[in-house]
Amino acid sequence: MTEPLRYSQSRPAVLSQVPRWDHEADVIVVGFGAAGASTAIEAARAGARVLLVESAAGSGGTSALSGGEIYMGGGGGTPIQRSAGFEDATEDLYRYLLMVGGPNADEAKARLYADGSLGHFEWLRAQGVEYKNSFIAERCIEPSTDDCLIWSGSEEAWPFSAQAKPAPRGHCPKFLGMGGGRYVMDVLTRRVSEAGVQVLYNARAQALIADGAREAHGLVLRIDGQERFARARRAVVLCAGGFVMNREMVKQHAPFLLRSRFPLGTVDDGSGMLLGASVGGAMINMGEGFATIPWYPPGSMVKGIFVNGRGQRFINEDCYHGRVSHYIMRQGGDRIWLLQDHATYAVGEMQTLAKMEIGAAGETWEEVERELQLPTDSLAATVRLYNHYAAEGTDPLFHKSRKWLKPLNEPPFIAIDCRIDHCFYASFTLGGLDSLPTGEVVDSDRKVIGGLFAAGRTTCGLPRWGEGYSSGLSLADASFFGRQAGMRAAATAR
Amino acid sequence: MTEPLRYSQSRPAVLSQVPRWDHEADVIVVGFGAAGASTAIEAARAGARVLLVESAAGSGGTSALSGGEIYMGGGGGTPIQRSAGFEDATEDLYRYLLMVGGPNADEAKARLYADGSLGHFEWLRAQGVEYKNSFIAERCIEPSTDDCLIWSGSEEAWPFSAQAKPAPRGHCPKFLGMGGGRYVMDVLTRRVSEAGVQVLYNARAQALIADGAREAHGLVLRIDGQERFARARRAVVLCAGGFVMNREMVKQHAPFLLRSRFPLGTVDDGSGMLLGASVGGAMINMGEGFATIPWYPPGSMVKGIFVNGRGQRFINEDCYHGRVSHYIMRQGGDRIWLLQDHATYAVGEMQTLAKMEIGAAGETWEEVERELQLPTDSLAATVRLYNHYAAEGTDPLFHKSRKWLKPLNEPPFIAIDCRIDHCFYASFTLGGLDSLPTGEVVDSDRKVIGGLFAAGRTTCGLPRWGEGYSSGLSLADASFFGRQAGMRAAATAR
Repeated sequence: MTEPLRYSQSRPAVLSQVPRWDHEADVIVVGFGAAGASTAIEAARAGARVLLVESAAGSGGTSALSGGEIYMGGGGGTPIQRSAGFEDATEDLYRYLLMVGGPNADEAKARLYADGSLGHFEWLRAQGVEYKNSFIAERCIEPSTDDCLIWSGSEEAWPFSAQAKPAPRGHCPKFLGMGGGRYVMDVLTRRVSEAGVQVLYNARAQALIADGAREAHGLVLRIDGQERFARARRAVVLCAGGFVMNREMVKQHAPFLLRSRFPLGTVDDGSGMLLGASVGGAMINMGEGFATIPWYPPGSMVKGIFVNGRGQRFINEDCYHGRVSHYIMRQGGDRIWLLQDHATYAVGEMQTLAKMEIGAAGETWEEVERELQLPTDSLAATVRLYNHYAAEGTDPLFHKSRKWLKPLNEPPFIAIDCRIDHCFYASFTLGGLDSLPTGEVVDSDRKVIGGLFAAGRTTCGLPRWGEGYSSGLSLADASFFGRQAGMRAAATAR
Repeated sequence: MTEPLRYSQSRPAVLSQVPRWDHEADVIVVGFGAAGASTAIEAARAGARVLLVESAAGSGGTSALSGGEIYMGGGGGTPIQRSAGFEDATEDLYRYLLMVGGPNADEAKARLYADGSLGHFEWLRAQGVEYKNSFIAERCIEPSTDDCLIWSGSEEAWPFSAQAKPAPRGHCPKFLGMGGGRYVMDVLTRRVSEAGVQVLYNARAQALIADGAREAHGLVLRIDGQERFARARRAVVLCAGGFVMNREMVKQHAPFLLRSRFPLGTVDDGSGMLLGASVGGAMINMGEGFATIPWYPPGSMVKGIFVNGRGQRFINEDCYHGRVSHYIMRQGGDRIWLLQDHATYAVGEMQTLAKMEIGAAGETWEEVERELQLPTDSLAATVRLYNHYAAEGTDPLFHKSRKWLKPLNEPPFIAIDCRIDHCFYASFTLGGLDSLPTGEVVDSDRKVIGGLFAAGRTTCGLPRWGEGYSSGLSLADASFFGRQAGMRAAATAR
C-alpha cells in the first residue's frame, strides 16, 4: 500500500495552506512547445516577469516532432502565396476554418485568426523563422527540400472547394528535409531566452493552487523529487499539450483513437486539461481526434481509390490524407485497401514508413477480388463503376475532382494493404479546455476562471474535428493563440 | 444588463456562506425518474431521512416517456425467460453487456449487473411492477399488447451472436399498449410515498453546496422564485437525466446528435453532470449518444436492405434498430433508403410515426436507381450482389443471419426514404459522470468525491455506446444502480 498523493492535477491545492513560495512570477506558463514559447515571449515583452515550467529536460514539446508547418493566409495572401500566384481573401480563409472546425466550430477564434493570420506570418519572421519564397505544387505531406508553400489540407477537394476559394496555406520553414518543427522551436527558444523568461526544466505541474473562489494563484511543482510552490501574481497559462499519451483518458473520451498504434506526442498526458478542469474549466469536444496514415506522396497515388473490407469506396481520395484516414477509421472492420493500376502505382518513402504493403495483385480486378477473398463482383463492381465515370471525367458518388480521375484499367492491378492494426496511423487529440480567443479559460457557463489561461492542444482551438483537420493548423493555433494568451495574461490585474 | 446569477450549477456554493438551512435530510436525491425513485426507496428503507427534489410538477422524468422495458436475465433466466424456453447464463449476459458498452465498457458495473439482474427482477415485482408470463417472438420495438418478453437488442445478430448465446432480455411491464414507462413510474412513485420520502416538486437544483475539500453538503434550490438551502447530512444523489435537451452542450460534446430533430427527454438539460463536475466529478464518454428511427415492425421489413446516398449497403439489417440507425448517422450525406420488394414490404404504425415515405418505385432495380438519380449500376449492383448470395442463404459482406435473407426479386420494388433531416430519429445522450458501481461519483483520478452519488443517465453507466445500445438498458441501469446508490448513500457517515 502506498500513501495517497497529497497533490493531484485533479484537485486544486488550497491557497491558504501553501507553506511557502519557492518561486514567484507575474505569469507562469506550463509547457515549452509552440504555445508555451509564444505565450512566454509575448508576456515577457509586455513587461511581465515570466516563469516557464517544462516537465521534459529541454524545450520543444510535441511541436518539435512536427514538420514546423503553419497554416496561414488571408488578407490577399502572404508574400509567398502572392509570389506563387495565389490571392487569398480573408473571407475564404475564414470559411475554410469554419468548415475545418466542423459542427462545433468556434466562430470567434476563426474570425480572429483569419483577420490576424497575415500579421502572424510577419511575427514569425520577426522572431527569426525563415521562409524561402517558393511553392511546391506537387501533392506532398511536407517538403523534403527547404521549400515553403504547400497544399496542406482539403482546399481543392469537395466539399471544401465549393465553399471557399482554394489556396495553398501550409507554410513550411526554410529547413532542409523533414522535421522543421525542431528548427521552429529552436528559434522560438532563443527568443524566450532573450526576453528574460526564467525557464525551469524537469519541473512537473502537480496541482493548481486556487483560492475559495477557484481563482488560480500558482502551481505546486515537483522538481528533483521535491515539492515547490510557485506563485503567479497575475496568471497561470496552461500550454501542456493534448492527452493522446494518456491511454486511460483516450479510452474514456475518444476510444476510437485506441486503434491508432502511433500516438503522436511527447508528454501529452492530459495534465493541462486536468489542471484546468480542477478549478472548473470546461472540457469540450473530448471525443474528437486526428488519425492519419501518410499514404501520399507520390501524388499519382491520389489517382487510386480506397476500398473498405466490403470492396466499397467511401471518400473522394483527393482530400487531405487525414480526412481520408478519418473515413478509414469509421468503416467498421479493419481491412482497407488502396487500389492502383500500372500507370498510377508508385512507391515512395512514405509507403515504406507507413508499412503499406501489397495485399494482392492480378491481371484483372476480378483476380484481385478473389485473392482478397471478397465476394464475387463486390470490388470488381466498385472499380467498374469508378472507371466508367472516370473515363467521362466525373465522380458522381464522391466528387473527386477531374484532375485526379483516371480509369484504373492498365494491368497489372494491385491492392495495397492499409490495415489500421498493421500500418502507421499516427494520432493526436482535438478536444480540450474551452477558452475565449484571449486564451482565458471558461467554465460551462462560459464564465472566465480568474487567473487562468490556456493555449495549444490543451484547449479546444481551431482544429477540433478529425474530418476537417489540415496540416499546420495545430501549430498555427498554438502559436497565434499562445501569443494572445501571453499578452492578456501580462495585462491581468488581480 | 442583468445581474450575474449568484448561483450556478457550474460552481459550488460555499458551505461556510450558507445563510440558513430551509430543508434538512440525510440523503437528498435530485430527479424523480427511475434512478431517483429507486435511490429514494432504498435509502429510505435503509433508515435514512430522504428528500427528493424534482424540477417538474410531477414524478416520471424521461423514464415515464419510455416503454418501461427493462433489460434483465442471467442466472439461468428470469421466470419469464425460462417459461419461454430460454436458459440465460450469467456469463452470456455479462459478455453481451461488455459488447454493448463498446471499447470503454465498465467491467465492474457489467459484472455487478449480470450477477444481480435476476434479483433486480424480483425487486421490481416486489415493488408492484407486474409482468405477464409471455413472450413475443416477432420482431418489435415494444408490445402493443400487455405481453412481457421481447428481443430488444442485437442478441441474435452478428457479431453479438458469435460471442454471447442469444436470449431475449427485454422485460416489458403488464400494461396494455405502448408507454409502460408511465406505469412503472406510477408504481415506483407510490413506493416512494409509502417509504416516507419527502418530495418537493417544482424545485430546481441551482448549485451544489460544498466545503473547501469539495465534499458535497447540500443544494441551493430554487422554489417559487426563491432560493432555498437544503442540507444533506449524509449525501446528495444526482439522478437528473442526460443532456440531450441542452443543445449547446450537445454541440460541445456530441455534435452528431444535432442531426436528430427529436431529442428524447424531459428536463435532461445536463444539470446533473454540471453539478457533479462543479466539485470535481469527471465527465466521461461525452461524445457518445443514441439515435434511432423505429423502422420495424413489421418484422418482414428486416428482410429489406438499407443503402446510403451512394447506393451502398452498410450494416446487417437484422441488428437492433438503434444499431442500424447509428450506422445510418455515420454514412455521410443525408440520403438513406430502405429497399423492399413486393413480398417483404409492409407498412405498420411505426413507419407512419417515423415519417418513412416511398422515395421511388419501379419494376426493376435499375428503374428505382434512375428514379433516385443514382449513378448507373450503383444501387443495382448492390442489390444484384445481395440477391446472389441471399439465394444461397449467405451474406458474406455483413453476416445478416439466414433467417432474414431473401432475394429482393419480386417486383414492384420500392425505396423507402429514411432521410435524417425529415424522418423521426429520436436521440439521447450516453456520456456522463464517472461513478463506481456503488454510485459514488469519482474524479479523474477515480478518487471518490465525498458526499456525492449519481445514477441513471447523469452517469456513464452500462449503456455508453450508440453502436451497442439495446432497449431496456437505460432503465435497467437507472433502477439497478439507483438502488445501489440509495443503499450506500444511506450508510454514508461524514
